[in-house]
Amino acid sequence: MSIRVGIAGYGNLGKGVELAVSRAPDMELTAVLSRRNPTALTLQTPGVPVYALDEAGRLKAGIDVIILCGGSAKDLPAQGPQLAAMFNTVDSFDAHTDIPAYLSKMDTAATDTTAIISSGWDPGLFSMMRMLSGAVLPDGNDYTFWGYGVSQGHSNAIRGVEGVRDAVQYTVPLEAAVSAVRSGANPSLTAGQKHLRECFVVPEEGADLAKIEESIRQMPYYFAGYETIVRFVSQEELLRGHAGMPHGGHVFRTGVTGGEHKQVMEFSLKLDSNPEFTASVMTACARAAVRLSREGVFGAKTVFDIPLSYLSPTDRNTLIKELL
Amino acid sequence: MSIRVGIAGYGNLGKGVELAVSRAPDMELTAVLSRRNPTALTLQTPGVPVYALDEAGRLKAGIDVIILCGGSAKDLPAQGPQLAAMFNTVDSFDAHTDIPAYLSKMDTAATDTTAIISSGWDPGLFSMMRMLSGAVLPDGNDYTFWGYGVSQGHSNAIRGVEGVRDAVQYTVPLEAAVSAVRSGANPSLTAGQKHLRECFVVPEEGADLAKIEESIRQMPYYFAGYETIVRFVSQEELLRGHAGMPHGGHVFRTGVTGGEHKQVMEFSLKLDSNPEFTASVMTACARAAVRLSREGVFGAKTVFDIPLSYLSPTDRNTLIKELL
Repeated sequence: MSIRVGIAGYGNLGKGVELAVSRAPDMELTAVLSRRNPTALTLQTPGVPVYALDEAGRLKAGIDVIILCGGSAKDLPAQGPQLAAMFNTVDSFDAHTDIPAYLSKMDTAATDTTAIISSGWDPGLFSMMRMLSGAVLPDGNDYTFWGYGVSQGHSNAIRGVEGVRDAVQYTVPLEAAVSAVRSGANPSLTAGQKHLRECFVVPEEGADLAKIEESIRQMPYYFAGYETIVRFVSQEELLRGHAGMPHGGHVFRTGVTGGEHKQVMEFSLKLDSNPEFTASVMTACARAAVRLSREGVFGAKTVFDIPLSYLSPTDRNTLIKELL
Repeated sequence: MSIRVGIAGYGNLGKGVELAVSRAPDMELTAVLSRRNPTALTLQTPGVPVYALDEAGRLKAGIDVIILCGGSAKDLPAQGPQLAAMFNTVDSFDAHTDIPAYLSKMDTAATDTTAIISSGWDPGLFSMMRMLSGAVLPDGNDYTFWGYGVSQGHSNAIRGVEGVRDAVQYTVPLEAAVSAVRSGANPSLTAGQKHLRECFVVPEEGADLAKIEESIRQMPYYFAGYETIVRFVSQEELLRGHAGMPHGGHVFRTGVTGGEHKQVMEFSLKLDSNPEFTASVMTACARAAVRLSREGVFGAKTVFDIPLSYLSPTDRNTLIKELL
């Protein structure tokens, strides 16, 4: 029997999950839950019912796992524990410093369900690579580079600057830094020495461009300490050239074995669509959540807790025969 | 209490495990087992006793896991089941087509022990990447490139050619093919379109060099169908310039989500020492074998069956806090 999947939250991520579920041979989309008026939503998949989020309780018998597609700041802290008390869940909670507290709340809620938290690619696949490579090369250094890609957080930060109407920010890994790491040279690099930030900014009419540029450059945490390029463009140019959501990055572990032999491990992603890829990882994790739950392994879990084969629709013997 | 590790087989791989165990904060090397006369072995670690392989039975109480460092052709098919009946084991069985049969024999032997088979990097880490990336991007293609590195199998094949005294063969990934795959172009490529083979050959005195070159180029399976470069060198040159054991490679999954968005996943290794890196992966797997065994999860397991955190000496909460 197919795994019956629900989606909570129908933004870019929710739409990505809908597409990923439609490609999964062992899954069917059973319901979409939304905070919006259900009649206002038009899905890509015909015939799937939409419910208000607070109707979730009465869907319990018909859904094997809900993929939570809300944001980490406001949606998940409330929705997560509420839904995990009733359903197996998967989410992409990505507020790094708050993960232990969120894990604990989800673990308390998921008494007879399985809740996989913080899946996606970072946290998620990148975390798996950091963990795996550190276990293999204990004597070494980690490096994470992000981009080339759009950072929503940085784009929003620019939109908050006085005189800015709209903006898109690209995080760009510095090739010289990537090459130095890849060579096994083990350089010491700050985040600002690893990335530059390229900003496409639509100013309000008559705004002081020099002042906008200076405000962006000096913004603490977001831009201070980074090489920052500000390009002013029209709203039309922004919509035409910068509406995509590419992203990616590199995780490196460079270490030494036997006192002298350099060993370099690298994991890289180059993504045309960040939300669709994140959704694809979450959908694979949904399969694992259902399987763990059927085995009675309840509570909050992370990508560190899942045997890899649980992510695949293919049976273990075939995986071993074809991929090992 | 430290994990007490035994090593069976003290060649390059066994020596690599010895080094890896010495770097592991939670492990100690307790014994080395060898087919050779124990008094003939000088270990890198002072004070560790060496035993004959057939004495293994009486060491049962003092060893938590034995890392099997023998070869797949002759050693492991016999040693594996024999030792797995008494000890938790880890091996790097890499005869791909024979893995299912070996798994089954090891599973039968490991009735109250845990035997992780086919660890290392291929099979091993590369297998994990193929499996993980296929689960995330079901609509896509896999590509595995090997090298730049020394292939023992191909080097041995050349050594079997009439008139050859010694040889080292490097498998070299073709950069144009790697770039085409990395771009997401999804090319169709044979193994020969992905790699070239560079051979450093020491001829016997007076041997027919043209005939040697032709015999190598035409060797079915090993060289036929590949761009093959043969370079004749002296024994001194071979020892001076080609005694290392570098290796590495790339695993790609390139796929599409949502009908049009290209997504590229890449995992790469660049290794100065193939045996030391393989040993490092096996040592991390030894930790997982002991942990699974303590939980009563017996039988033959693969890298697909292990939660990643079981590979690390760091506790789960710290992993989640620092690496997720």
